[in-house]
Amino acid sequence: MYNVYLRQFCKIRTRRPTFHSVLNKMAKSSFEYVKNYELHDTLLPNTWIVVRVDGKCFHKFSEDHNFEKPNDIRALNLMNYVAYSVFREFNDLLMAFGQSDEYSFVFKKQCLLYKRRASKLLTIINSKFSSSYVYYWDKYFPDVKLKYPPVFDGRVVLYPSEENLIDYMKWRQADVHINNLYNTTFWSLVLKGNLTPAEAEKRLCGTVSADKNEILFKEFNINYNNEPEIFKRGTLLLKKTVNVENSGKCMTVIVDVHDDMLKDKFWTSHANLLTVKSLKQNLIYNGPLTNIISEQINNKETS
Amino acid sequence: MYNVYLRQFCKIRTRRPTFHSVLNKMAKSSFEYVKNYELHDTLLPNTWIVVRVDGKCFHKFSEDHNFEKPNDIRALNLMNYVAYSVFREFNDLLMAFGQSDEYSFVFKKQCLLYKRRASKLLTIINSKFSSSYVYYWDKYFPDVKLKYPPVFDGRVVLYPSEENLIDYMKWRQADVHINNLYNTTFWSLVLKGNLTPAEAEKRLCGTVSADKNEILFKEFNINYNNEPEIFKRGTLLLKKTVNVENSGKCMTVIVDVHDDMLKDKFWTSHANLLTVKSLKQNLIYNGPLTNIISEQINNKETS
Amino acid sequence: MYNVYLRQFCKIRTRRPTFHSVLNKMAKSSFEYVKNYELHDTLLPNTWIVVRVDGKCFHKFSEDHNFEKPNDIRALNLMNYVAYSVFREFNDLLMAFGQSDEYSFVFKKQCLLYKRRASKLLTIINSKFSSSYVYYWDKYFPDVKLKYPPVFDGRVVLYPSEENLIDYMKWRQADVHINNLYNTTFWSLVLKGNLTPAEAEKRLCGTVSADKNEILFKEFNINYNNEPEIFKRGTLLLKKTVNVENSGKCMTVIVDVHDDMLKDKFWTSHANLLTVKSLKQNLIYNGPLTNIISEQINNKETS
Amino acid sequence: MYNVYLRQFCKIRTRRPTFHSVLNKMAKSSFEYVKNYELHDTLLPNTWIVVRVDGKCFHKFSEDHNFEKPNDIRALNLMNYVAYSVFREFNDLLMAFGQSDEYSFVFKKQCLLYKRRASKLLTIINSKFSSSYVYYWDKYFPDVKLKYPPVFDGRVVLYPSEENLIDYMKWRQADVHINNLYNTTFWSLVLKGNLTPAEAEKRLCGTVSADKNEILFKEFNINYNNEPEIFKRGTLLLKKTVNVENSGKCMTVIVDVHDDMLKDKFWTSHANLLTVKSLKQNLIYNGPLTNIISEQINNKETS
Repeated sequence: MYNVYLRQFCKIRTRRPTFHSVLNKMAKSSFEYVKNYELHDTLLPNTWIVVRVDGKCFHKFSEDHNFEKPNDIRALNLMNYVAYSVFREFNDLLMAFGQSDEYSFVFKKQCLLYKRRASKLLTIINSKFSSSYVYYWDKYFPDVKLKYPPVFDGRVVLYPSEENLIDYMKWRQADVHINNLYNTTFWSLVLKGNLTPAEAEKRLCGTVSADKNEILFKEFNINYNNEPEIFKRGTLLLKKTVNVENSGKCMTVIVDVHDDMLKDKFWTSHANLLTVKSLKQNLIYNGPLTNIISEQINNKETS
Repeated sequence: MYNVYLRQFCKIRTRRPTFHSVLNKMAKSSFEYVKNYELHDTLLPNTWIVVRVDGKCFHKFSEDHNFEKPNDIRALNLMNYVAYSVFREFNDLLMAFGQSDEYSFVFKKQCLLYKRRASKLLTIINSKFSSSYVYYWDKYFPDVKLKYPPVFDGRVVLYPSEENLIDYMKWRQADVHINNLYNTTFWSLVLKGNLTPAEAEKRLCGTVSADKNEILFKEFNINYNNEPEIFKRGTLLLKKTVNVENSGKCMTVIVDVHDDMLKDKFWTSHANLLTVKSLKQNLIYNGPLTNIISEQINNKETS
Repeated sequence: MYNVYLRQFCKIRTRRPTFHSVLNKMAKSSFEYVKNYELHDTLLPNTWIVVRVDGKCFHKFSEDHNFEKPNDIRALNLMNYVAYSVFREFNDLLMAFGQSDEYSFVFKKQCLLYKRRASKLLTIINSKFSSSYVYYWDKYFPDVKLKYPPVFDGRVVLYPSEENLIDYMKWRQADVHINNLYNTTFWSLVLKGNLTPAEAEKRLCGTVSADKNEILFKEFNINYNNEPEIFKRGTLLLKKTVNVENSGKCMTVIVDVHDDMLKDKFWTSHANLLTVKSLKQNLIYNGPLTNIISEQINNKETS
Repeated sequence: MYNVYLRQFCKIRTRRPTFHSVLNKMAKSSFEYVKNYELHDTLLPNTWIVVRVDGKCFHKFSEDHNFEKPNDIRALNLMNYVAYSVFREFNDLLMAFGQSDEYSFVFKKQCLLYKRRASKLLTIINSKFSSSYVYYWDKYFPDVKLKYPPVFDGRVVLYPSEENLIDYMKWRQADVHINNLYNTTFWSLVLKGNLTPAEAEKRLCGTVSADKNEILFKEFNINYNNEPEIFKRGTLLLKKTVNVENSGKCMTVIVDVHDDMLKDKFWTSHANLLTVKSLKQNLIYNGPLTNIISEQINNKETS
């Protein structure tokens, strides 16, 4: 109402801001006003923040380093280890999903890290991923010299609802399937069928999934369903609780799994993951002891 | 995946819609709507784009790797070489300026790279810088093992006028001066004066430049003016023309200089740099043959 | 121009490109590049969009037009009628809530109006509100000359979850309560207690709700609970179904109510409102026939 | 540098922000956290801010109020007076340009009004324009009842260089010319040539300026060059100094002129306008005493 109470606001609001002059009093030099040109990029609160990094010109990079076709398990393991080394740094990360030369990192929706400044979150993930890729190269390619530093671009996307975030994860995993089926067939035609790449591309033009499955089975005796799950589904990182063998102790670790997120069953069994209370009720892990999991158990024991 | 399928993307980014329509034919395409949640982040045209990368917790990083105090010339040379390796990748970069654990990259104001999308420009510079820092570590620290991958954050700032951009460069260079004078005095007190860090900090509290100069001169016989220019002024990278010795030929190279940008003289003699026609009228370089410059001349000659 | 030429625009906004290509054929088209400086301001999908308009310097405006203190029912009725006239124009509006000189308009979260461009949604609501305030002034202030056109500022805020949106509505309604209790007490002290405004302000400084209730009751024999609900709770607009008397017919109308949104009961009984299917299951209205409701029933009958 | 100085930053930066909890301490209610969802929309400093308002569905509005074709001088005078009434409220406005149902307001590039918040600047101009259009309607349409409140949408655009801003102004004025020549010819064909609108549209399809000029001259004896300048060029508002007749005094007033901004001559003679010192060196006005100018002189004399 138009009264004393509001009058206070009115006065305050109409006071001309002189933030330049205020800033200058705190400045170490008269040039410091330029700092003011940095604009705010706070992300909307209470939404899931996804940072996706994506290899730049990795087709060339993979050729320059003789990656095996259609999938190089060393390259995938390196990507997963790099993502794991990023993941363990940030408590606010909920999960990460990778395939080929890309990785998506999902922050909890209540994340307040760096006041949710977009460029901070984006560059810190992106930088750590990029430097780690070089740092851990030798671990997975001990006999291959890294010819030049790779580049990953990055982007930030917000998802306001659980359904949106799940569909994002499904979208990326559907992408793995589509690409891998294509690539498996393409490289079978080239490497085993003796087609040129151009001929293989032409042969596959217009084909649907069933066609490619049939080519693989009839011509190359490959049952696509039996291909390794890391190739068909990509890799998901998330925190689960494991029973450490022979110790009777439980421990929360980052696990690398290849679950089928396109099935609703996955999301019902991981319902805790997306709720705010996710940290309290841990998910139980019963899968194989991967290198990534073993490393965490061993580190814990020796520390 | 690093293969024919992705090659198409890499070459022609604008053909993405084809890929989308492929996806749309599949049953799984119903998730693809999530791509629309990516918001536009186009930067205002006709403004200088500055991307600054900044080491995250480099105080700890420098201690963990026993950097010399107050300045470690190996670390500075590594930073400069990394920045040079980024600089040579982008024709749209005008100059770069670095000090300590930070580096600023300035794009021409008419730059249209990646349609001026903020996150693309930011992450590509940041990623290349981060991966190169690890890649070139051994070149400058042959006897020091890199203990973990470093992280750099990054930000984008726009400057609409020549005056603003010049003031930005002056701001960063003034910062070098202020920090280096402080650090030189602080570490003299600690390393030679046998004060504890806390005592040194207290001693310097409230002092102005003249006080610090006097402490250095009277107590440690150091004339601050004689300190190396790379310490006092940081390093500027920009393109200049050099006469290649004994060949009579001219060549455009990236030079690493330590000019005083706080003086107007610098900007009048480099007036071409900021105008749109900057590429046509080359700046002539008459300085020493640094390692960075020599490398370019030698590469050219052997290629 | 208000003619055939522009009619084409109005009908088919997407035909603008045609107009541009016409321009491009002209010599003058070389200026049109400036259109590209307009940056995208698309709002994140799947979030509730709130546009709030707020009177600028309405303290002075209310004095200049002798509004009654602490509440002028004519002014509140005008605000509500203006908001109603905005509300009926947009199918994508879910509800609106007003008090004093402000009104919040809530768009459905699936709203795609104007492709969710922030400035379009903001200005169209703000402009219609502002022009309507002048247009309908005489209806509520038949004997008071409007001395000058009022100004309302506006802002857009997004809310990603139902809880956030409900808390927004509660925040604004809690604000009504806080302000109205203060103002009712303040103006009692001034108008009936013969204090100067400064004395009244001082008297109320540091008091809590209970103190003000006591002042009202003991000194002025006012039971705050009996004050009109429009003063204590503001006005909420939303669509409900009414049974039209003596006709046996149902009709969906915009109702103006003063419900207590701070109570959870309100939100459970209006659960349909926030779900996507809200339009199908109508809320039933059993309240009094306000002028706003009557007008809609009468218009329907005569049309 | 990796030292004491930076250590201070490092500590500060890594301190987790708890701004929600801080805010809650200042809050009047526990719901106030929702205020935090308002995102910053500060505009880049040192750039010209253009706010353009544009009539929504004014083709219909002009028909509903029987505007004369192709131009209704009353409607244009109303638009100009409304724009003048907005202009006089803001010292930070440099100029305004209008035509048909649109008006552009240009803020000085050093403007700090409302801390350059986009939505504030946009809505305040847009609201004042909209409410004033209704308020002043009777002054220009004394015999025409305003049937409903009009709506104007609005947008904000930034221009970083003088050249960009000048090209913006030229773009809008070129638009007046193109539209007015088309409309003048179209309505001559319809009103005097007895073509139906569809026939007139067909007749003009594919014609260039010269064709339309010839139709006007040969068929309707209209020399387009002799058409009123307000129709051909739109209206520019800016501040100039006038000599008040018979008083020997000078006075700064807002003038409404129809200058040709497509000519460079205009910009050289108004060079002061775009420089920061524009306020000190006044532009001299020697044109006719328009109603808008007279009103200001008379108000001054009587005040």
